[in-house]
Amino acid sequence: MRLIHGFGVAVAIIAAAGAAFAASEYEGAIKARQGLMRLNAFTIGQMAAMAKGETPYDAAAAQTLADNMVMLTKLDTGALWPAGSDNAATEGTNALPAAWAEGSDIGAKYMAWSDASVAMQAAAGKDLASLQGAMEALGGSCGGCHKAFRASQ
Amino acid sequence: MRLIHGFGVAVAIIAAAGAAFAASEYEGAIKARQGLMRLNAFTIGQMAAMAKGETPYDAAAAQTLADNMVMLTKLDTGALWPAGSDNAATEGTNALPAAWAEGSDIGAKYMAWSDASVAMQAAAGKDLASLQGAMEALGGSCGGCHKAFRASQ
Repeated sequence: MRLIHGFGVAVAIIAAAGAAFAASEYEGAIKARQGLMRLNAFTIGQMAAMAKGETPYDAAAAQTLADNMVMLTKLDTGALWPAGSDNAATEGTNALPAAWAEGSDIGAKYMAWSDASVAMQAAAGKDLASLQGAMEALGGSCGGCHKAFRASQ
Repeated sequence: MRLIHGFGVAVAIIAAAGAAFAASEYEGAIKARQGLMRLNAFTIGQMAAMAKGETPYDAAAAQTLADNMVMLTKLDTGALWPAGSDNAATEGTNALPAAWAEGSDIGAKYMAWSDASVAMQAAAGKDLASLQGAMEALGGSCGGCHKAFRASQ
């Protein structure tokens, strides 16, 4: 490690933070993408609870959730999915090699999620019926990738 | 559960996804905020590796990382930190009650991270020296919250 003066403390903090989950070459990327999925699941879960009437519809809260989801779709996630980080090649992931295979339409499926999020963003804060109307496409877009590219658990 | 026609499949998918980590009232929020931290750690870790010379400096990659980080600072994370989800009241978290206490400056510390991310966004793609120059403030801003509001592990 080459030492650069001026950010030794920052580097030490980052090294300590990284040490907890840097056991394998891909573990950081795998944990990060699973982190993103948990953020997404938490976000869509709250919207689904409103859609189902399990929690009261709250226009402002629904809008915030949908805004967050759209922002999450805009992350450049290329670094989270390095080739070789599939469940046939490494541990700790359910991502199937099919996601990386030639002809994989994972990009199109990811875009479908992005499009469904944008549609939800336009609907979520209007009223409950609009949120409900946008829910099927959004939930379906999760399944689009999960069915094709995630091993059953 | 009230059944709404038209998004039964979506709701079933979401319910199944949620079931894996919905054991306690706050578990979804805790896992989601830990997911965000892992995304952040992975992102800053790659910038730190460039700053230290462990990986070659790549202007485009550094810019993408910094852009991602700024986007993550813009999420509305209110729902991730419900009162009562501290380590004195619930399990599975290292968040200290101090974060929620009267007079807590967690908002200011969070803003310091946001500001440092914006500064990194302006620097990361320029050259290695600029990235290195923005690293101390960014790493320090992580420590700002972690020292005050996270239990030692």
